[in-house]
Amino acid sequence: MTTFSQIAPQLEGQAIELPSWAFGNSGTRFKVFGTPGTPRSIEEKIADAATVNRFTGLAPKVALHIPWDKTDDYAALRAYAAEQGVALGTVNSNTFQDDDYKFGALTHIDKKVRQKAIDHHFECIDVMDATGSRDLKIWLAEGSNYPGQADLRGRQDRLHESLSAIYDRIGEEQRLVLEYKFFEPAFYHTDVPDWGTSYAQVSALGERATVCLDTGHHAPGTNIEFIVMQLLRLGKLGSFDFNSRFYADDDLIVGSADPFQLFRIIFEVIRGGGYGPDSDVAFMLDQCHNVEDKIPGQIRSVLNVQEMTARALLVDRDALSAAQEAGDVLGAHEIFNDAFYTDVRADLAAWREERGLPASPMKAYAASGYQQQIEESRVGGTQLSWT
Amino acid sequence: MTTFSQIAPQLEGQAIELPSWAFGNSGTRFKVFGTPGTPRSIEEKIADAATVNRFTGLAPKVALHIPWDKTDDYAALRAYAAEQGVALGTVNSNTFQDDDYKFGALTHIDKKVRQKAIDHHFECIDVMDATGSRDLKIWLAEGSNYPGQADLRGRQDRLHESLSAIYDRIGEEQRLVLEYKFFEPAFYHTDVPDWGTSYAQVSALGERATVCLDTGHHAPGTNIEFIVMQLLRLGKLGSFDFNSRFYADDDLIVGSADPFQLFRIIFEVIRGGGYGPDSDVAFMLDQCHNVEDKIPGQIRSVLNVQEMTARALLVDRDALSAAQEAGDVLGAHEIFNDAFYTDVRADLAAWREERGLPASPMKAYAASGYQQQIEESRVGGTQLSWT
Amino acid sequence: MTTFSQIAPQLEGQAIELPSWAFGNSGTRFKVFGTPGTPRSIEEKIADAATVNRFTGLAPKVALHIPWDKTDDYAALRAYAAEQGVALGTVNSNTFQDDDYKFGALTHIDKKVRQKAIDHHFECIDVMDATGSRDLKIWLAEGSNYPGQADLRGRQDRLHESLSAIYDRIGEEQRLVLEYKFFEPAFYHTDVPDWGTSYAQVSALGERATVCLDTGHHAPGTNIEFIVMQLLRLGKLGSFDFNSRFYADDDLIVGSADPFQLFRIIFEVIRGGGYGPDSDVAFMLDQCHNVEDKIPGQIRSVLNVQEMTARALLVDRDALSAAQEAGDVLGAHEIFNDAFYTDVRADLAAWREERGLPASPMKAYAASGYQQQIEESRVGGTQLSWT
Amino acid sequence: MTTFSQIAPQLEGQAIELPSWAFGNSGTRFKVFGTPGTPRSIEEKIADAATVNRFTGLAPKVALHIPWDKTDDYAALRAYAAEQGVALGTVNSNTFQDDDYKFGALTHIDKKVRQKAIDHHFECIDVMDATGSRDLKIWLAEGSNYPGQADLRGRQDRLHESLSAIYDRIGEEQRLVLEYKFFEPAFYHTDVPDWGTSYAQVSALGERATVCLDTGHHAPGTNIEFIVMQLLRLGKLGSFDFNSRFYADDDLIVGSADPFQLFRIIFEVIRGGGYGPDSDVAFMLDQCHNVEDKIPGQIRSVLNVQEMTARALLVDRDALSAAQEAGDVLGAHEIFNDAFYTDVRADLAAWREERGLPASPMKAYAASGYQQQIEESRVGGTQLSWT
Repeated sequence: MTTFSQIAPQLEGQAIELPSWAFGNSGTRFKVFGTPGTPRSIEEKIADAATVNRFTGLAPKVALHIPWDKTDDYAALRAYAAEQGVALGTVNSNTFQDDDYKFGALTHIDKKVRQKAIDHHFECIDVMDATGSRDLKIWLAEGSNYPGQADLRGRQDRLHESLSAIYDRIGEEQRLVLEYKFFEPAFYHTDVPDWGTSYAQVSALGERATVCLDTGHHAPGTNIEFIVMQLLRLGKLGSFDFNSRFYADDDLIVGSADPFQLFRIIFEVIRGGGYGPDSDVAFMLDQCHNVEDKIPGQIRSVLNVQEMTARALLVDRDALSAAQEAGDVLGAHEIFNDAFYTDVRADLAAWREERGLPASPMKAYAASGYQQQIEESRVGGTQLSWT
Repeated sequence: MTTFSQIAPQLEGQAIELPSWAFGNSGTRFKVFGTPGTPRSIEEKIADAATVNRFTGLAPKVALHIPWDKTDDYAALRAYAAEQGVALGTVNSNTFQDDDYKFGALTHIDKKVRQKAIDHHFECIDVMDATGSRDLKIWLAEGSNYPGQADLRGRQDRLHESLSAIYDRIGEEQRLVLEYKFFEPAFYHTDVPDWGTSYAQVSALGERATVCLDTGHHAPGTNIEFIVMQLLRLGKLGSFDFNSRFYADDDLIVGSADPFQLFRIIFEVIRGGGYGPDSDVAFMLDQCHNVEDKIPGQIRSVLNVQEMTARALLVDRDALSAAQEAGDVLGAHEIFNDAFYTDVRADLAAWREERGLPASPMKAYAASGYQQQIEESRVGGTQLSWT
Repeated sequence: MTTFSQIAPQLEGQAIELPSWAFGNSGTRFKVFGTPGTPRSIEEKIADAATVNRFTGLAPKVALHIPWDKTDDYAALRAYAAEQGVALGTVNSNTFQDDDYKFGALTHIDKKVRQKAIDHHFECIDVMDATGSRDLKIWLAEGSNYPGQADLRGRQDRLHESLSAIYDRIGEEQRLVLEYKFFEPAFYHTDVPDWGTSYAQVSALGERATVCLDTGHHAPGTNIEFIVMQLLRLGKLGSFDFNSRFYADDDLIVGSADPFQLFRIIFEVIRGGGYGPDSDVAFMLDQCHNVEDKIPGQIRSVLNVQEMTARALLVDRDALSAAQEAGDVLGAHEIFNDAFYTDVRADLAAWREERGLPASPMKAYAASGYQQQIEESRVGGTQLSWT
Repeated sequence: MTTFSQIAPQLEGQAIELPSWAFGNSGTRFKVFGTPGTPRSIEEKIADAATVNRFTGLAPKVALHIPWDKTDDYAALRAYAAEQGVALGTVNSNTFQDDDYKFGALTHIDKKVRQKAIDHHFECIDVMDATGSRDLKIWLAEGSNYPGQADLRGRQDRLHESLSAIYDRIGEEQRLVLEYKFFEPAFYHTDVPDWGTSYAQVSALGERATVCLDTGHHAPGTNIEFIVMQLLRLGKLGSFDFNSRFYADDDLIVGSADPFQLFRIIFEVIRGGGYGPDSDVAFMLDQCHNVEDKIPGQIRSVLNVQEMTARALLVDRDALSAAQEAGDVLGAHEIFNDAFYTDVRADLAAWREERGLPASPMKAYAASGYQQQIEESRVGGTQLSWT
């Protein structure tokens, strides 16, 4: 049996990127609830993200979303973030909130609209150059709602053209990461609905184009760890958007709906070489804290990833291989589960304390007064959300 | 084989209630697209709904949503609707857009919040009294997002108490109709997730409490016509919210995603006595025209219901029973499908013309100039949506 | 925080009934793999079941399936079981393997076939009288494969008639338990597809008729613990068939696919009064060990239920209620999860040893030589399976 | 509006391959029902398949399954088929019914087992050489039932090795077609679960390796026509296994569960160049007639494909493109649906009669006496099924 002290060194340097928008208000089509203390500026979002990192040591980067996080001076923003102790990370484009994009952006039948969307990505690359970001993440809301509404094939070909134009612009040290999503906001077809489509599209671009796997973007029953394995095997797993779901793209806290699934996913990441200093797979949250507090929601999330990583590292892989080779179904399953059922929380608390971090980041945050302070000081202005 | 002329008399009097909110803007959590001509007042919504009825003869009633359609003078609104040729129909309550309802309304742990939600329903009943509406439809957005967040059982008991208070207030000629929904906006549990729960709750209230079946509110793969059959058998099918879906509660045009399913549903309605002058099952649309035009979207929808009703009436039920009794699987299936595959559109066009209606309501609407007129005249003000 | 020693007393007396058929061969429509040592008689099945109980102390009863377990002398069988240290439990009827039932049994359109199926249940009741069994469990494979093939409503009415005849025959101390199943082996409609239908049917029979919840018999995404809560609330939860699933009715080892779901289910059982000496809810396994060893598969299963029961008992319900009442989403979720993540395995090992049971039933079984002994001695004859 | 006479020429030459096993008995894990007249030999299966072709003109080929259809003299079998008016088609391998394959075949951890499975495919290629078959179709039942049971990545790598060995053996005019399946008979992971995996595997082999799309092998809600479009676009759609489903891999008659979906699939086939003399996409049935008659079940199936092909050809693609380009959602949807709702059955009946075929193949078969004849003459022997 592997012990915590054996795997502890591998926990060093684990980093989970936080999405700036997790600190703004979000909700459903029915209602967006606001909460006291919600940021009114990108700087306040970064301050909140940095707070998560301060209490956990797990979240050294903040992802930006353009245009939500547009600013006049990215160099200044970068410096501000550095002061707070974090760096600016992935830049996310947005082609779903402009009236011109009602029937598509990179796939739109009208060349002018496509060019507008391509230009938006060029702008994002400019932002990346200014912020030092490596990854341009593209999630497309494009699709159609009714059979016959759109020419599926023509859209796919146009998507390739548009992505090629964007890919040609990214720098040698930058990457294009294409996310896929099963459905929503389009309800009949989505132009990048599955990993196969994302894989086929990025493969046609080149080496610096990879796939983003959002854990909430699959059909019911999909074996996500299998996809993780396959994309790592094919050398095309670029990044994760972590969250969890019971039904659709619920965007709940990672690990909250099916912790065993998160364990299996992280196990395959490790198994496939996607974890650790030699891997360039990016780990990121993409969640909506509709009803729970945002900052502790993010703290809880990165802790969930860390705890599950520790458990996945605990799997006795030699014993597992031996049981697998012997056809010992119950034995292999039990070795695998032994790690999952191991309670790593006390060990992790000690591990944190050794590093000058609070044993319990959740309690420490609650006791810190930060929440009261932002609730009191962030008065007036407009709370940020998805618009 | 049954012929169209044999079933034509049964098409008389078919009525599909339109939701006032279908004429306002709607969308997803990502974006709500506006369109020229969108109503700025309940009167304009009613004018649009009346237009659908004028072109189809199928939509003599408009459902209201409180508070979206609140007005100072319901008697005047009722008179205005009558002038337009329609009546005011079902009153829909709303307990999902007030900050107090973040953690529940009729199920809330705080008695004051529950009473507020009950009082809102009392207000809805007052509206019904003023409008002459029969049905109070209750859809609850209540639930929780995380395991442990809520006490499922306590909420169910409080739901019963709250519904009892509301039920006690409705008049002898009025009905309480309780809708169920599988998920959204709550993502872990929904307080009325399935027909069984709605049935158990309304059965505990009394005879004037029934179930509303929204065709988009089920788990993947659910046999909806079976539920229709069962609720009719149990005497508890109060009304339909028609729409269609590929994935979740997509709220697409009824019949657009799976026309054969709509056929099977309507067949069971007829089979179970839920269609025609002797039935009090209410048929209503509940859709979101996110990307398509709203008025023709509603016209298309009521036509879909009418066309599928004609096909379902065409089923040769004697022949079907004979094949079923003989264990002739393929024969029974073929008799059933013969009706589905019959093209009733020309017959329905003629049927309409006989009644002074346009043969093609879609074309007639497009040619009528109504759309241009509202686009030109409805300038300024605030387009209505779900807020 | 609740401790193990506080909840330990509640673990006394936990009993999970084993299905006799779990010890025979089972498989898919593609292949049934045999294994050395598989029973050739009901006595050998009982011996294996008793072995599970000997190593775990959790499985004092064996469920029978008629006709698979038919014997000439049930009194002798009962005595044999008693000698082995177990009792005979639930009697399961079978109406899906006779050619006459191709188009239904209790719902068949032909009265003679229905009576044959009713008579089979009478025979099962006779067996119950002889074995001292309390529960007659009815799972119906009935349904249809093609729209139009069957009259859904007529079948439902006939089902009521048939069940009434059976219910009238059961003794005052006996119960009729009606299982529901989403699909399979029927692929278009199932006559008892959901809890609502089972509830409506058993409610029409009387107090001694209740619902059986098989954890694998739901649509994708169904919140099963909600149904547990609701059936307990309505006083109609008769029994559980435990197993687990990723896709359809996979009949895998309980707790192996989604352990957190099992935790939530058992928590609701406890919350709703369905656990412990004052409850008459029956807990039973219904699994297929297609590729893993059968006896250790059953041992693993009852241990999974016990371990998860311990975790669910560990939930600090006072603290949970307080957090729920305060609207503290993250706090409530964390209190709930604290119990789930607690590693109870060492405590349970000690608990077992105190009671003269092996600390690790899995290892003790492997070391016992029982498996080798049955593999060597059970030579010749026909291994039992589902026929 | 396109007319039937315009599209009629494109119906010439349509061919849907029949699976030999559709004429044998099949069922579920619960029960296989036999029927009078079921073939006892591969020759009788071919005679039945040829009968389907005689009545419809749509089914000139019969697919074989090895070892189910093994024979000593394939040249004689080929001649026999030719006499009956049909040719031998796709050869299907079987790696799921040998005890050695319990934990995998082409992916098995033991090299000897893998070689045995590879050798089986070599044997299939020998059969192809003898029968003149073009396609070797590989469906793999391989996977695992429990997390931890198997090394997902190692299996994928071994799969590649095994497929490479097989691919190297097929002739210049032959193809390897790799089928994917979401789940069953494995319940946790399947080694080729989705089109992406099949695509990645066949792309690594070479040009003569393509993907087989079975319409029943997807997750709930999957947009299958999108996959058709994508595979055609990527040049990797090798063949179809047609059937239909409500839940899992139900293997029902193609077009019986969701006819509109079949219409959309065939529309994308045509749109993408997969239909007609210039395409080498193979169309095949893969169904189980569990409760309905087999020969008329196959007749009904090929007719469904033909009828839906006629409807899909009727789509006015110029008008559709114009509406799509104009962003006319409802207009495009209506043009698309106009074709679906057109009743082509009378036109097809006339079309058949012009070609010396019966207007109604179903009625003609029923009147032909073939069924009675085989029921009377096929007495004794063992009815064939999946073993």
